[in-house]
Amino acid sequence: MAGSLWKGRFLTLFDYKTEKYIVAKNKRVGVLYRLIQLSIIGYLIGWVFIKKKGYQETDEAVQSSVITKVKGVSVTNSTESGPLVWGPEDYVIPPQGEAVLFIITNFLETPNQKLGYCAESSKVLDGLCRGDEDCEEGKLVVAGHGVMSGRCLLRDENSTGTCEIYGWCPIERKFKPQHPLLKNAENFTIYIKNFIHFSKFNFSKSNIRETTDESYLKQCQYDEQRLPYCPIFRLGDITRRAGHNFQDMATFGGSIGVTIEWDCDLDKGYSHCHPRYHFTRLDISVSDKAIATGFNFRHTRYFKNAAGESYRSLFKVYGVRFNIMVHGKAGKFSIIPTAINIGSGLALMGAGAFFCDMVLLYLIKKSDDYRHRKFEGLETKKAASEDTNMATLEKDDLTC
Amino acid sequence: MAGSLWKGRFLTLFDYKTEKYIVAKNKRVGVLYRLIQLSIIGYLIGWVFIKKKGYQETDEAVQSSVITKVKGVSVTNSTESGPLVWGPEDYVIPPQGEAVLFIITNFLETPNQKLGYCAESSKVLDGLCRGDEDCEEGKLVVAGHGVMSGRCLLRDENSTGTCEIYGWCPIERKFKPQHPLLKNAENFTIYIKNFIHFSKFNFSKSNIRETTDESYLKQCQYDEQRLPYCPIFRLGDITRRAGHNFQDMATFGGSIGVTIEWDCDLDKGYSHCHPRYHFTRLDISVSDKAIATGFNFRHTRYFKNAAGESYRSLFKVYGVRFNIMVHGKAGKFSIIPTAINIGSGLALMGAGAFFCDMVLLYLIKKSDDYRHRKFEGLETKKAASEDTNMATLEKDDLTC
Amino acid sequence: MAGSLWKGRFLTLFDYKTEKYIVAKNKRVGVLYRLIQLSIIGYLIGWVFIKKKGYQETDEAVQSSVITKVKGVSVTNSTESGPLVWGPEDYVIPPQGEAVLFIITNFLETPNQKLGYCAESSKVLDGLCRGDEDCEEGKLVVAGHGVMSGRCLLRDENSTGTCEIYGWCPIERKFKPQHPLLKNAENFTIYIKNFIHFSKFNFSKSNIRETTDESYLKQCQYDEQRLPYCPIFRLGDITRRAGHNFQDMATFGGSIGVTIEWDCDLDKGYSHCHPRYHFTRLDISVSDKAIATGFNFRHTRYFKNAAGESYRSLFKVYGVRFNIMVHGKAGKFSIIPTAINIGSGLALMGAGAFFCDMVLLYLIKKSDDYRHRKFEGLETKKAASEDTNMATLEKDDLTC
Repeated sequence: MAGSLWKGRFLTLFDYKTEKYIVAKNKRVGVLYRLIQLSIIGYLIGWVFIKKKGYQETDEAVQSSVITKVKGVSVTNSTESGPLVWGPEDYVIPPQGEAVLFIITNFLETPNQKLGYCAESSKVLDGLCRGDEDCEEGKLVVAGHGVMSGRCLLRDENSTGTCEIYGWCPIERKFKPQHPLLKNAENFTIYIKNFIHFSKFNFSKSNIRETTDESYLKQCQYDEQRLPYCPIFRLGDITRRAGHNFQDMATFGGSIGVTIEWDCDLDKGYSHCHPRYHFTRLDISVSDKAIATGFNFRHTRYFKNAAGESYRSLFKVYGVRFNIMVHGKAGKFSIIPTAINIGSGLALMGAGAFFCDMVLLYLIKKSDDYRHRKFEGLETKKAASEDTNMATLEKDDLTC
Repeated sequence: MAGSLWKGRFLTLFDYKTEKYIVAKNKRVGVLYRLIQLSIIGYLIGWVFIKKKGYQETDEAVQSSVITKVKGVSVTNSTESGPLVWGPEDYVIPPQGEAVLFIITNFLETPNQKLGYCAESSKVLDGLCRGDEDCEEGKLVVAGHGVMSGRCLLRDENSTGTCEIYGWCPIERKFKPQHPLLKNAENFTIYIKNFIHFSKFNFSKSNIRETTDESYLKQCQYDEQRLPYCPIFRLGDITRRAGHNFQDMATFGGSIGVTIEWDCDLDKGYSHCHPRYHFTRLDISVSDKAIATGFNFRHTRYFKNAAGESYRSLFKVYGVRFNIMVHGKAGKFSIIPTAINIGSGLALMGAGAFFCDMVLLYLIKKSDDYRHRKFEGLETKKAASEDTNMATLEKDDLTC
Repeated sequence: MAGSLWKGRFLTLFDYKTEKYIVAKNKRVGVLYRLIQLSIIGYLIGWVFIKKKGYQETDEAVQSSVITKVKGVSVTNSTESGPLVWGPEDYVIPPQGEAVLFIITNFLETPNQKLGYCAESSKVLDGLCRGDEDCEEGKLVVAGHGVMSGRCLLRDENSTGTCEIYGWCPIERKFKPQHPLLKNAENFTIYIKNFIHFSKFNFSKSNIRETTDESYLKQCQYDEQRLPYCPIFRLGDITRRAGHNFQDMATFGGSIGVTIEWDCDLDKGYSHCHPRYHFTRLDISVSDKAIATGFNFRHTRYFKNAAGESYRSLFKVYGVRFNIMVHGKAGKFSIIPTAINIGSGLALMGAGAFFCDMVLLYLIKKSDDYRHRKFEGLETKKAASEDTNMATLEKDDLTC
């Protein structure tokens, strides 16, 4: 007896229970509801799935390795340095092919600097003096080039002079670049090798065509349409595509951001994942009211003479800094985002039904009738006759 | 006739169908359900939307370019090197303004090293010997400085000596730094220029004030309140904000992480996206039980004498390594996350209703009555009279 | 009176309303529905929560700082350079311990280059000539080493010669490396120090064991099982784990990607977040049809003779480039993804009920009976008797 009771209970588990609906023969609300349903389905299929690929799991944490190689040769002739031939080993800093590299386009050499005493530059405010008392011995010149010796060097008695300092003398001369010295830097080519890996999907790719033809990379030049897998760029083309003139940039230097964008739909396969190159000038601000344009730094070469004394050449170099940034995104079908998007779409349809109920129950004439049909057991002035026996549960009887 | 049948079918599509509810006049479960509803709505509005901005799509893959420039001058005087004046071109490695840069605060020069024969350092375990048989000719000294010549150099007969090696001689002497040589490195300033781009929203910004006033960057110093767009920092301030004393760090070197945090709410517009700077010491572990503190490396300068023979200066440099890391997050309103969050919130309300049903059907006294009202057609001992005609569908008749 | 009406309205707010269900005594659909429910619950618990940790919020934007240090010594003897002893200060470029570093394994020195006139290399296509007219004075040689002097240097009258150029002479000789010169580079060790920070969870960790034992890092070598927190690797082991032979790579150079993978489940605590190391060769493409293998670049050392004239040594260096990439992912329990996943799972169950309804209403024999029970007020040939009084709402009466 008890067994058959449990069996019965167990079997009722498999009685399908389905919600009871009432049919409101109201075409307006019906059309409204169908419209809501249609727009949610349209949004789900059109926007979420087709446009935004909401069925895909994405990986934006791309691992990337960039190697660069610059080619080209240039000749300069300046008063300080004499005739010089420049190869990549000289004008690329650092020379080892990093993702951030600097190409010298202009420079000022201060050769044969030795440690000794000379006048501070007159550009340094803290080094100006009218007498020896302005130059405290042993004090460092703020934003200057050395330590004060205590003497003020005046051209004549009434003028303002500069303190004598101990430092690398002679001090670098004032220099306002007029035009770039490495004029043909525009024709240098830069080869950007990029390897990416999406660890979530274990997917790797490189931006170089896979070929056994050894001469391919020696002759080609990048062309978005015809040669997208030949990542060799003329510097002049890069600045032009960034919207700037190379010669202008080369004079005072500048900074160019090279973005390699990988937007990969892995559902479509290996061959549908291509690199795209964007070029932006980074040292000019959005509104062009920029004080931070130009790019230069100083580096030195040290020498020793026969007596073992050090001397050095100080180079102030202007040039274009290339910052190669890789941005990648890969997407692949995954059940979880699909389920989340479908599930939440369905739940929104429930919200649509709720909204239509509100219209039905509060905004239309005969809403009272609907209310009584929808809510069985609702107490009203005229008691709903067929439900009385069930509806009169007393609140006090409950023990919840 | 058939046409009007199809027309009828089509029209029923626009009959609004709404779920039938039964009203359980049970205030306790009602209150419970309202509480569940309220907490879900509160969670959705308060936590998800207001606090966590769940209506926004976010981009955390910021593209960033960092340029640094250090200013300051220092004077040192050591036995080996004599008086030296240091400018940024000397103490910043590399000099070209990278995001990872090293500032020398202490050093040991081993000048005039030449290739030749000398004793291995007594610190190298593998170089210790008691006789020539310990120094196999042509064998490299493990963790040492050259190749063994086969001779063991002993001070006197009973002591332990070191093998003679062929290498750059003299070997660097033992050095335990006591205090930094570049004492005023604390006053050097570092200018950190950062440009970011969020490609998902095509939004760019820089951490420098947009102004045409050329003197702005020459005089200002960073102040979180007054000058947030003047990214010039004193080294001493950086270490202080990282919780460490500069002079301590300068002696043995160290590593500082500078995080630039961009947390941008693009719904509020361009001017609500500010950089924030955090400073952490990286070479000290969380629990301070660290063996990996300090930072030093060696670099060389090569010279040739009149005879064309190479000699070099070996520099062991200690200093502070700055690692500038940029972390960015941008959010902007998007329909998809909004729909997902609202949808799942609504679905959870359904779960709340299910939970209340369980309470109503199983935990309260008159639950049997509710069960029969809720489940139309439920077979029980006393058959529900008004539903008999419908409920007696035989299982055997079904063909599903 | 009005007050009690409002009070009544307010109180009905707390009448619990629950959906009315009809029980379809159809075991097949019931089983189908239970199966759908079970599979959704199984997917939600098994796949989403247990396997994919869908209850966690994740942070993939790891901030990372990498410091490297290479140890080892090697001896070479080549015709051009004579015997040389190499320490890390020489063979690591750059020497300051970056995340991207290059270790020289092979090199060709072209010592004592001076600016002057000599023949262009015969490998440069643009430098070949049959007469002086092919060598326009002042023209730069494309992909060459200097500027043409106007003379064509021919061995004899009938052969093809090369233009005379002004550049750094002598030109680097042709060089096809046969075997690496730094043979024992294989035994060098590289110490990779990594510090990570997840800003979303304010969690930091380093890949070094926290110990006060100073000798720990001096003696240990990485072992995945026994010493996972001793990040010191033999170069030979790294290439072996990347699937390549070190000596082969060392001859022409190559590029190795070292990925440090942090997959942290922060719910399990600090000690359940371990680094894992992966090694890949980056200069060989996926399909092995590679033209981009090998890695070399040139760098120079400048000298001045007693007369102040510059001369230089040009080094063409081959070697292994290590690119240390850090990839991190941290997950921690968060209410939002949990709610989203549960919510969408519940919504999908609603879709399952809808599907079963379709089966019940359209695919089984007695579906018409079900339809009339499910949809109260549905007009049919035999009017549903018990609902007539409510169902006969006239469409025309509605004013929605």
